[in-house]
Amino acid sequence: MRALDLIQKKKEGKEHTKEEIYFLIENYLSGKIEDYQMSAWLMAVCFQGLTPRETAYLTQSFVESGEVLDFSNISPYIADKHSTGGVGDKVTLVLIPVLASLGVYSAKLSGRGLGFTGGTIDKLESIPGFCVELKNEDFLNQIKDIKAAISSQSPNLTPADGKIYALRDVTATVDNKSLICASVVSKKIASGATSIVLDVKYGSGAFLKTVQEAKELAKLMTDTAKLLNKNIDVVISSMEQPLGLCVGNALEVIESIEFLKGKYEKDLYEITFELAAKTLINCKIAKDKKEAKELFDSVINNSKALDKLKQIIKAQKGNVEVIDDYSLFNLGKNIKEIKAPKEGYISKLDALCVAHCAKLLGAGRDKKSDPVDYGAGVVLSKKIGDYTKKDETIAQLYFNDLDKERINEAINEINKAFEISDNIPNSVELIAK
Amino acid sequence: MRALDLIQKKKEGKEHTKEEIYFLIENYLSGKIEDYQMSAWLMAVCFQGLTPRETAYLTQSFVESGEVLDFSNISPYIADKHSTGGVGDKVTLVLIPVLASLGVYSAKLSGRGLGFTGGTIDKLESIPGFCVELKNEDFLNQIKDIKAAISSQSPNLTPADGKIYALRDVTATVDNKSLICASVVSKKIASGATSIVLDVKYGSGAFLKTVQEAKELAKLMTDTAKLLNKNIDVVISSMEQPLGLCVGNALEVIESIEFLKGKYEKDLYEITFELAAKTLINCKIAKDKKEAKELFDSVINNSKALDKLKQIIKAQKGNVEVIDDYSLFNLGKNIKEIKAPKEGYISKLDALCVAHCAKLLGAGRDKKSDPVDYGAGVVLSKKIGDYTKKDETIAQLYFNDLDKERINEAINEINKAFEISDNIPNSVELIAK
Repeated sequence: MRALDLIQKKKEGKEHTKEEIYFLIENYLSGKIEDYQMSAWLMAVCFQGLTPRETAYLTQSFVESGEVLDFSNISPYIADKHSTGGVGDKVTLVLIPVLASLGVYSAKLSGRGLGFTGGTIDKLESIPGFCVELKNEDFLNQIKDIKAAISSQSPNLTPADGKIYALRDVTATVDNKSLICASVVSKKIASGATSIVLDVKYGSGAFLKTVQEAKELAKLMTDTAKLLNKNIDVVISSMEQPLGLCVGNALEVIESIEFLKGKYEKDLYEITFELAAKTLINCKIAKDKKEAKELFDSVINNSKALDKLKQIIKAQKGNVEVIDDYSLFNLGKNIKEIKAPKEGYISKLDALCVAHCAKLLGAGRDKKSDPVDYGAGVVLSKKIGDYTKKDETIAQLYFNDLDKERINEAINEINKAFEISDNIPNSVELIAK
Repeated sequence: MRALDLIQKKKEGKEHTKEEIYFLIENYLSGKIEDYQMSAWLMAVCFQGLTPRETAYLTQSFVESGEVLDFSNISPYIADKHSTGGVGDKVTLVLIPVLASLGVYSAKLSGRGLGFTGGTIDKLESIPGFCVELKNEDFLNQIKDIKAAISSQSPNLTPADGKIYALRDVTATVDNKSLICASVVSKKIASGATSIVLDVKYGSGAFLKTVQEAKELAKLMTDTAKLLNKNIDVVISSMEQPLGLCVGNALEVIESIEFLKGKYEKDLYEITFELAAKTLINCKIAKDKKEAKELFDSVINNSKALDKLKQIIKAQKGNVEVIDDYSLFNLGKNIKEIKAPKEGYISKLDALCVAHCAKLLGAGRDKKSDPVDYGAGVVLSKKIGDYTKKDETIAQLYFNDLDKERINEAINEINKAFEISDNIPNSVELIAK
């Protein structure tokens, strides 16, 4: 078998056998197949696609390229979730404490953000002292002790995906559904979870632009998991406007803490609950959605979820005092108020423009090695359907030392994000049926 | 400008600017763009294509990446030719001596063969002592002295094409018309010729399978040359059956010597003359095709073309005695006669099968570093339209030490090549209108 022939085969749109997929992945990981051959193959995949069967083989080969975590001596039910990425998506920061406070063992492995805003790991790093790099052993022990841990992905899990993801990132081969599916599903399987819930997002602020594309990716992921004897639940949700009010690392942690204190935006609640309900039912904690809702609300109202977040922060060496003193977050020292240019109803709040704005303020990065300003970001005062008077504040920009040109660019982006109309806009369906 | 964005742009099927093409090629040659990014771009080009304008920019960037030979102080007319590659294609070995003996300065830069049979350089190396690697200065001086030289491509000419060609070869990105066009045309322009004639082949033994594809590539090459203010003539010819009777390095040199001695196959004569006529008219040696034919035939009949070949061999340090003593070629010591299984007319003689057979016998190579057996190959006794009796010899296989299995494979291929029918087959049009 030769890599050259396999590239040619995929270029011609033919289906690989299991042996061929394993040959490519194993030899690439061991260095016997060069980057330039793998990138040619990946580009051919972007044009010709992979069949569901090929996608399952690829996923499996990623899983088998490294360690697989084993929680079977802790609990038969281990929960994990994943989002395909959105603007202001801080669901993990609320969901994991809620689930763990209800007795669900929650093992969450997350990534850093590339692109507009930080990933969950970046957000947690905005908590002074918080350690995001747990060794597999410490990760397992923490879950045993307090039922929850959130750590960056260990390089021992799915190393083939790690190597291929880095290559995709620099060769414009990221946006293929099968490659995304294999990357996400393999990580979830290797993380050892038994209940896996995925939030597949579509719209302006997501990489999938239409609900149709989101449904296709969701189906591919559940089908792939099924072929590998795993069950995955999927929620498909809109990312036309940012989730909640805050976009930016520390700002999103603060919004999550507020949620656990009982103060939350409807859209963030709705998605977090949807994912929680599926998990609670999977893990036999709740028998149906109604019971799940009672449980969910109870741990918000009695502060048990907030206490769980404190436990997680403490276990991972973060400063727990941030919970009651947000000044410890070192938010951007400059705040620019953005005013409504006219009165009316917010009819559009483009998530991508808000993300661009937050990135210009310092909240995101282009390259893995770029630094992130944890205190920078955007706080929205209005969302789609809200009424605003002329000159009322519709958003605040948080930032540190930036040149004037960059600040103006950011202001320009946030102004582009908002559309104000005389009529009440049609309500947006957040979760697709 | 970033390579990543240019890969994405081509992936989306958008047209590059001149600056973008030059950015890619210059930075790839200097090592600032990595192989894995170039191969991803090349694969995207295979799917999305390049426009005629992009193809011209690419060609020009290849030319400007290295030296351009300058013959202006020798003659205003310098001839070159190129074939897109066929089975038994020894046209160069006849054409260059003919042209030079008629006063046309002929500067021929050739490649080694990859795939089924050797290239012109491999064929010439079958002449004991023949030196195929001339320095630019020696190449120019030889042309000044004897009006002809045949050398392997200098790495100083179109180095960007050289580097990209090597990458295409291992990433299944060879078969794109624009990439082929840029590679061929840039080399011809850099070689300093003023009269360039291309033989674009189609059919079983060529990489283009249909006359339509050949016409498209031919048009792309002439258009590209025009955009770069160069004139290129094209002949489109069929490669359904091998050209002439011999396939294999030394065997093809012998057939070429025989041609120059006045003994030739009709098809080889027809194509060689067609290319010669265009060149003689371009270089103002002949005023029309009729005059070109008289001149062509005269230098065969009076042995001046044969004498020119002797001069070339001598100038490039080869053993001139091979002209009169073919035993100096060290042909394969074993000869296997292939007999007709029944009587009838040869209705098919598949060039690709003959090429496979020759390669199995040792005449071709897979990798640049593989050795070639110069003495191995196939001599056909019959071609399409010829009548054969049952058990009459239709071909001879020449080979040295090979295991029995490989010999049987070769015999199998040559038998597959021939089809014998009761009816006289329709005559094949060799040169497309």
